[in-house]
Amino acid sequence: MSRLHRAYLAPGREWLNGSVTLDERESRHLAKVLRVRMGDEIETFNGRGEVRLTSVKQVSPKAVELKSTEERLMVPSSPAFELGVAVPKGKKMDEIVRQATEMGATRLVPLVTNRSEGAADPERWESKRERWRIAAIEACKQSGNAFVPEIEKLLPLQDWLAALSSATFKIVASLESDALPLRIWLNEGEVAERPKEVALLVGPEGDLAPEEYGTARSLGFLPCAFGENVLRVDTAVVCAFAVAKEELQAYLATQPMNQSDD
Amino acid sequence: MSRLHRAYLAPGREWLNGSVTLDERESRHLAKVLRVRMGDEIETFNGRGEVRLTSVKQVSPKAVELKSTEERLMVPSSPAFELGVAVPKGKKMDEIVRQATEMGATRLVPLVTNRSEGAADPERWESKRERWRIAAIEACKQSGNAFVPEIEKLLPLQDWLAALSSATFKIVASLESDALPLRIWLNEGEVAERPKEVALLVGPEGDLAPEEYGTARSLGFLPCAFGENVLRVDTAVVCAFAVAKEELQAYLATQPMNQSDD
Repeated sequence: MSRLHRAYLAPGREWLNGSVTLDERESRHLAKVLRVRMGDEIETFNGRGEVRLTSVKQVSPKAVELKSTEERLMVPSSPAFELGVAVPKGKKMDEIVRQATEMGATRLVPLVTNRSEGAADPERWESKRERWRIAAIEACKQSGNAFVPEIEKLLPLQDWLAALSSATFKIVASLESDALPLRIWLNEGEVAERPKEVALLVGPEGDLAPEEYGTARSLGFLPCAFGENVLRVDTAVVCAFAVAKEELQAYLATQPMNQSDD
Repeated sequence: MSRLHRAYLAPGREWLNGSVTLDERESRHLAKVLRVRMGDEIETFNGRGEVRLTSVKQVSPKAVELKSTEERLMVPSSPAFELGVAVPKGKKMDEIVRQATEMGATRLVPLVTNRSEGAADPERWESKRERWRIAAIEACKQSGNAFVPEIEKLLPLQDWLAALSSATFKIVASLESDALPLRIWLNEGEVAERPKEVALLVGPEGDLAPEEYGTARSLGFLPCAFGENVLRVDTAVVCAFAVAKEELQAYLATQPMNQSDD
């Protein structure tokens, strides 16, 4: 079964008379690695929901040109999920970005917490951020996700917490003894309004510090337990995101629509 | 914050007058890597739910002796989950074993499917299986899971399907167009009895072949969709397991107990 190849249209790549020329990175990949030929079918996506079926018009290693044959506008899934993740050691964050993208995260915020490990060399972080952006684009191609998540720059936890809107529904994956399954919070009516945005916080291997839990709670984060065991950060992100999506989509399906909703 | 160290009691390690001697692998780790000393507190687990708090009685690099101070018997979470996973390329399965163990899988069955990649050299598989077993024990230590999952030997998908009990509740993560969210299957009454065992099948990167889906369905597997995107095997395992656990535990909480249940 040959799979449809996908190409990413970076911002600035414009359609002109139904044709577009890919940037160098995408062109090289299609021409050299996938060895596409004239007439081959390619799906393009601009990372903001516009997906087009195209056929290859011209191949050169630095500039592949495509002709649009069909256009679709995808609707982002609701609610939008913003994931604040304490960056683990090594290259684990690359996999977290990939998996969160496959699952449809809207925004990813790499966080430094009290118990985070690793140095905070700004240049190194900027190059990591670039690598994560590419990982997100590649994960979109592979998974068919039409929305590339925003990868924010590394933030201290406190700054992220302070910047979140009060209308956001906030969850922290918690090992505290009074954390409850999200389903129970929802049954107990802990959602004031129909949330359009959800923020999910996942702390570091050594857990969040008590004062960090305290700040998060004071800003409205609900401490949620996801199973009985201590999960590593990568498992916690996928597990908590999957459960939160499942529970909140089901919860929203039972709630009346607001006037302002589309 | 110093975490409580955990040690695994392999089958055959017996308590005698409240004391036990660890095997060489565990002893070496405690003595050389963690550098425990006499009187330190260690938690032991036998992988079948027996957990003891102990204090270190004697340290030598090949034989650490522990004295039991407190005993707990843990109850396995219900329902039990058996995961049949098409083994991906490279070392991905190591991570899948680790994550499934953190999340409390009861049994893991590495599967060969029509579109599986990689050779089937029996010796290589036996050494992989040993590595996965150790990965599961280590993940138990890290996560606090008191039950080491069984790691079965590599099986052709058809053999695994044929061997499953008819009383097992069966789910396949499916990309078919008529796959539905598990929640909908449950609402539609697709569970004949209160399931004690759940089997979850996750296919390979290239998807299961139509005839494999067919066999699974004919044996009672429900095709379940987990989100709108195509997930890689590792993401699919964690995501589908998390959602299935969440949904089935909630479903069981609303069902009357059978006479035979404990």
